[in-house]
Amino acid sequence: MDDEQWMRAAIRQALLAETLDEVPIGAVIVRDGAVIAEAHNTRETQKDPLGHAEIGAIAQAAKILGGWRLIGCTLYVTLEPCPMCAGAVINARIPRVVFGAYDKKAGAMGTVYDLAEGKLNHRPEVRGGVLESECAQLLSSYFRNKRK
Amino acid sequence: MDDEQWMRAAIRQALLAETLDEVPIGAVIVRDGAVIAEAHNTRETQKDPLGHAEIGAIAQAAKILGGWRLIGCTLYVTLEPCPMCAGAVINARIPRVVFGAYDKKAGAMGTVYDLAEGKLNHRPEVRGGVLESECAQLLSSYFRNKRK
Repeated sequence: MDDEQWMRAAIRQALLAETLDEVPIGAVIVRDGAVIAEAHNTRETQKDPLGHAEIGAIAQAAKILGGWRLIGCTLYVTLEPCPMCAGAVINARIPRVVFGAYDKKAGAMGTVYDLAEGKLNHRPEVRGGVLESECAQLLSSYFRNKRK
Repeated sequence: MDDEQWMRAAIRQALLAETLDEVPIGAVIVRDGAVIAEAHNTRETQKDPLGHAEIGAIAQAAKILGGWRLIGCTLYVTLEPCPMCAGAVINARIPRVVFGAYDKKAGAMGTVYDLAEGKLNHRPEVRGGVLESECAQLLSSYFRNKRK
């Protein structure tokens, strides 16, 4: 139940992205029962290839915690992380990741690649599919409207 | 020969990292025969899990070019990119990557993973092993001194 609660906070970030005409993907980082970082996709507005929700949240959390190891943190994100973001999770030693929708094109926590499978020097616990249809629908309706 | 010339610029960035007691890894981005971005590892000094040389260089280049697609750019980096950085290369649509030393632990352009193999929506051309021994020796002597 907690996972759904925090995923709703990530969805709120995704909705915020949509109001800026960004692809609606949001992320929050939770530690000790509180959100310590929240971010959404900023690629178009910031013209930043690194501007994924997870990257923004990880950068914030590291500043707040004062170190590069995000011990005790869980990352919630509405879409399965891409290789860049899954790699960032591993580099930041985030112990647990919960994502919403699966990404057939670039998912790197089980779908196209599984960077959490244990070949690297950190192996996060991963749970996918939390509020999956809600997270997926945000994306499909955004792209449907784009094509109009 | 040009690749070696630009790899020497990346090595200079790695040496700069070493003076700050950072792991000596450096990167430059070249476009139209000129360096447009240069960066080194900043993880320890900035306490930043995202502080890899490639990420710094990509962020700079995107600002300079004013967009998230780094068209016409080549990334030179002294060590094979990790999954985060290889993913960033793909997200930024960098057409060509040249790296120095291979990374047995986390290399994601052929060694542990090959994110450039064509499963994702961009497939950079990759050349590894340019000034390999020089790039590798920088790292091995840094870690040897660390253990003293």
